[in-house]
Amino acid sequence: MNRWKLTVEYDGSDFVGWQRQDNGPSVQQSLEEAVERLAGETVRVHGAGRTDAGVHALGQVAHFDVEKDLSERAVRDGLNHHMRPARITVLKAEAVSQDFHARVSARERGYIYRIVNRRTPLALDRGRAWQTGRLLDAEVMNEAAGVLIGRHDFTTFRASMCQANSPVKTLDVLTVVRTGDEIRITARARSFLHHQIRNITGTLVQVGEGRWSVEQVRQALEARDRSKGGPTAPPDGLYFTDVVY
Amino acid sequence: MNRWKLTVEYDGSDFVGWQRQDNGPSVQQSLEEAVERLAGETVRVHGAGRTDAGVHALGQVAHFDVEKDLSERAVRDGLNHHMRPARITVLKAEAVSQDFHARVSARERGYIYRIVNRRTPLALDRGRAWQTGRLLDAEVMNEAAGVLIGRHDFTTFRASMCQANSPVKTLDVLTVVRTGDEIRITARARSFLHHQIRNITGTLVQVGEGRWSVEQVRQALEARDRSKGGPTAPPDGLYFTDVVY
Repeated sequence: MNRWKLTVEYDGSDFVGWQRQDNGPSVQQSLEEAVERLAGETVRVHGAGRTDAGVHALGQVAHFDVEKDLSERAVRDGLNHHMRPARITVLKAEAVSQDFHARVSARERGYIYRIVNRRTPLALDRGRAWQTGRLLDAEVMNEAAGVLIGRHDFTTFRASMCQANSPVKTLDVLTVVRTGDEIRITARARSFLHHQIRNITGTLVQVGEGRWSVEQVRQALEARDRSKGGPTAPPDGLYFTDVVY
Repeated sequence: MNRWKLTVEYDGSDFVGWQRQDNGPSVQQSLEEAVERLAGETVRVHGAGRTDAGVHALGQVAHFDVEKDLSERAVRDGLNHHMRPARITVLKAEAVSQDFHARVSARERGYIYRIVNRRTPLALDRGRAWQTGRLLDAEVMNEAAGVLIGRHDFTTFRASMCQANSPVKTLDVLTVVRTGDEIRITARARSFLHHQIRNITGTLVQVGEGRWSVEQVRQALEARDRSKGGPTAPPDGLYFTDVVY
């Protein structure tokens, strides 16, 4: 049996999310069908992270097993060929040992969230960023982000349908940087709760607009109560960038 | 009569180009129809540059005249409202004097061309960049670009249907810079010939792939013969960035 590790880019706008669902095309299903066409075997493709509908990936990682012997290039180019015209690309295919598991072996996951801070709608970046009109103070957003770094009970920023066993997570990196009219939030952790980054982003935007103070973010975190957190930011601006193993 | 200057962003993928044509929606038509809905007047919208089908704009400039008195904000937000859901956005609307003409008054136009140099198809940047698989040497491309800077007869890089009176143009800036797997060509001039940047880009890619030498680019320029130039790059990677008046 051959185990393959894939690094995958996709435009989340076209999918119901990573995971197979009855209500539309998923990234997982597209990959599984492409493997079946390439190798003639029915497989399960495991992803490092379950991105929601509309969330993009620059470097999602996945793995699957097939009997058939294939070269790295044949896997990469063959899957890309069979997935056309879906907006999913296998950037890299690597033969790995049976120890490797895309989800379980992951030591760190990276995401960015793109906000375009301007009054007018997005023509080129529609679906690729969150457009917010009120002027955002990225420095105070970054200060508020600092409150959330480290090991905390993130219940305040956790979706009600989150299936994680524990709401305690360790956020290794959370920074907010402005370049021109774009504000980019970078988040890194071993793992995240469902909607954690989108809920944090929605809260940080409240801070950036001057509605919330940094101290209120601290109180919200300590409340361990989703109703004390800010709104959920739209999926459009979120990108799963990479996984460290 | 009130003259309005507009700064406009659009995704060229959805349009037959800037100019009104019978075979599909154009940016000009979308703007003219939006002005008619906003002001109740039939107008002609003049653009600084006629972008081709598939070519994008970050800062196309246009102007039009209306009798109706409107605020800058009403023009900007009103046009954006009436153009929905087309991927065109008026970034700025400014009241200008009758001396101003978007095309005639322009002193310098800026474009960028985005190449993504990788083996795999583009998922997120599909239609937004030219993907070329062979490894490109951006430094030698930049050296070849240097040959084209200045005042020259650009017949070699001019589309056969080009309507300009003269093939002589002055290219003020032409640089090629690589950042990761992206190669960005920047071009600035008072005006350009039809397909000039796409034909230059196609030629520079020949150089980057090692098929052409810098000297061959010089000879091609001096030949003043379109058949001596490289192929036309696709429109996908071209962005009209700005106009200086």
